[in-house]
Amino acid sequence: MRATIMENDGSVHLAEVPDAAIVHPTDAVVRITASCICGSDLHPYHRGLGDRASKRAGHEFIGVVEAIGADVTTISVGDYVIAPFAISDGTCVNCRNGIMTSCLHGGFWGSDDEQGVLVDGGQGEAARVPQADGTLVKVDREVDDALVPHLLALSDVMGTGHHAAVTARVGEGSTVVVIGDGAVGLSGVLAAKRLGASRIVIMSKYAERQAMATRFGATDIVESRGDEGIAAVIELLGGIGADSVLECVGSQGSLDQAAGVARPGGVIGFVGAPSGTFPTRPLFSNNLTYTGGVAPVRRYIPELLAEVLDGTLRPGDVFDSTLALADVAAGYQAMDERRAIKVLLKP
Amino acid sequence: MRATIMENDGSVHLAEVPDAAIVHPTDAVVRITASCICGSDLHPYHRGLGDRASKRAGHEFIGVVEAIGADVTTISVGDYVIAPFAISDGTCVNCRNGIMTSCLHGGFWGSDDEQGVLVDGGQGEAARVPQADGTLVKVDREVDDALVPHLLALSDVMGTGHHAAVTARVGEGSTVVVIGDGAVGLSGVLAAKRLGASRIVIMSKYAERQAMATRFGATDIVESRGDEGIAAVIELLGGIGADSVLECVGSQGSLDQAAGVARPGGVIGFVGAPSGTFPTRPLFSNNLTYTGGVAPVRRYIPELLAEVLDGTLRPGDVFDSTLALADVAAGYQAMDERRAIKVLLKP
Repeated sequence: MRATIMENDGSVHLAEVPDAAIVHPTDAVVRITASCICGSDLHPYHRGLGDRASKRAGHEFIGVVEAIGADVTTISVGDYVIAPFAISDGTCVNCRNGIMTSCLHGGFWGSDDEQGVLVDGGQGEAARVPQADGTLVKVDREVDDALVPHLLALSDVMGTGHHAAVTARVGEGSTVVVIGDGAVGLSGVLAAKRLGASRIVIMSKYAERQAMATRFGATDIVESRGDEGIAAVIELLGGIGADSVLECVGSQGSLDQAAGVARPGGVIGFVGAPSGTFPTRPLFSNNLTYTGGVAPVRRYIPELLAEVLDGTLRPGDVFDSTLALADVAAGYQAMDERRAIKVLLKP
Repeated sequence: MRATIMENDGSVHLAEVPDAAIVHPTDAVVRITASCICGSDLHPYHRGLGDRASKRAGHEFIGVVEAIGADVTTISVGDYVIAPFAISDGTCVNCRNGIMTSCLHGGFWGSDDEQGVLVDGGQGEAARVPQADGTLVKVDREVDDALVPHLLALSDVMGTGHHAAVTARVGEGSTVVVIGDGAVGLSGVLAAKRLGASRIVIMSKYAERQAMATRFGATDIVESRGDEGIAAVIELLGGIGADSVLECVGSQGSLDQAAGVARPGGVIGFVGAPSGTFPTRPLFSNNLTYTGGVAPVRRYIPELLAEVLDGTLRPGDVFDSTLALADVAAGYQAMDERRAIKVLLKP
């Protein structure tokens, strides 16, 4: 089969790899109908893989189950399924605590599974899915083309934006600041709106992202950054700042920005892979809360899927580009150059 | 009147200062019946005051109202009152949000008030109390000597330990680790027990503090620190770590310790004045929450006072030494040398 390989220098290309196949009795094999490129894929795309010679790329996909191992009980051949970006058994203590990303028997796409066997990446034609019963969520509905992007968004970005909003305690009437206007930040706007926020400020410099944010529910846009950006937000939000901040970037600048725009007692839900350090003094002085982390999206899929299926939630609107899997390299380039917000890949 | 002065080099002594007197119509004057020395007083005691030539010391006291300004409505002359360590009006947006330590018109003992007038410190014979209606809590009961330490503990340490436990979401059946065996850490044990924790591990090396922690409700004691200490705690707590961690120190070592002993999805309630930096990577990878901050103890006094008055809560048991105010320097030295956990001062 064909799958995307990221080389040591970060470059990507499609290559022939061994067909996905059952290895353990708890595995399934999924024929991928759609996958996508993540903002977090751009980090190794830029800085390379360090010690690793190469890796299988991609961690977001949906598709149809083609085979199951002998111990799989809740998923059947022919099921249409969503695969979240982390593998989890759904039964260990961390899964029971809702932190499926810390599953004691889990793992991540493109890395070795618990038994040391390589797991396929998501940007390919098919994938072996370890812990299939815990990992996959079945879509109980005929899936047409219009539904595909919305289902695919549940594999990562929508659940990640939702995690930022939930951990930041967004609720009815909350004032919210979203830092980051990529697909996760925009999904965070959608999540905050859905949870009842009365005011949603997005910090964004790009016209098309501002427009999408507004469609998703943003009430205010702030283009400036640093101290000027902080002052603009504080002025918009009653002179004290936001109840909840969704930090969807992870750089030092955005972490400082987040601490600066939160009101005393405010909560920062942090889902950007961190390249910076949390400022400690403002947490202490202003009673801020830093929370969030790598999103356990598996936990959120059932709740969000119900609204996707009844048409009230349209997270797939973040996809503004669809390419053939063969054009995966062009997709990375388009996202890297900010010509695309998020690229959907069709094998 | 006499009050404690801390000199630029951190040394303390009792000196004659102007009598406490009403300046603003929202002030009260309180004749102090008991005050105490805080672990946080030991930081400037060690490193000096930097730019400041000297300062009035102390921020925890109880006493009897001796005079009130024309605009004070809820406090009367003769009332027995508790003064929390922060001044707050109780009506601004931050106070209404429960963060009295960020009061827009508040301040701290020994610093200038909103109008730039010096506020007395707590380690003295009397104090002018700005924003008396918001700041002071009246004790509706005849106060005898036995009650004094328990009331005084509500001015800071008990409320601070409680803040660590509340923000760390300690509840029925929680597993808890307390880092720090000073008066705040010990109060955190008491708070965690009161909130229903089923397991309370304290990290402590000192026999008499271990004994007090056990009396307060600690179920386990870990003496080792660093990786060895983390491994010991993890083993005690089901192999994954604690639901809630009360970080009552603030050093880099204790912040790292806190992140190391929290389970995936666990919450760290942080109340130690920070000299270190929050480790960012474990928050992200393990979905930790860092919360807490300088405790808005004013918010908690009514709830805790009710239990002190009915005899079910005895936070004053952290005082293991009582000195005359004239011996304040000896009190600092005893706490600094760990010969005392917490020193009560009687003017």
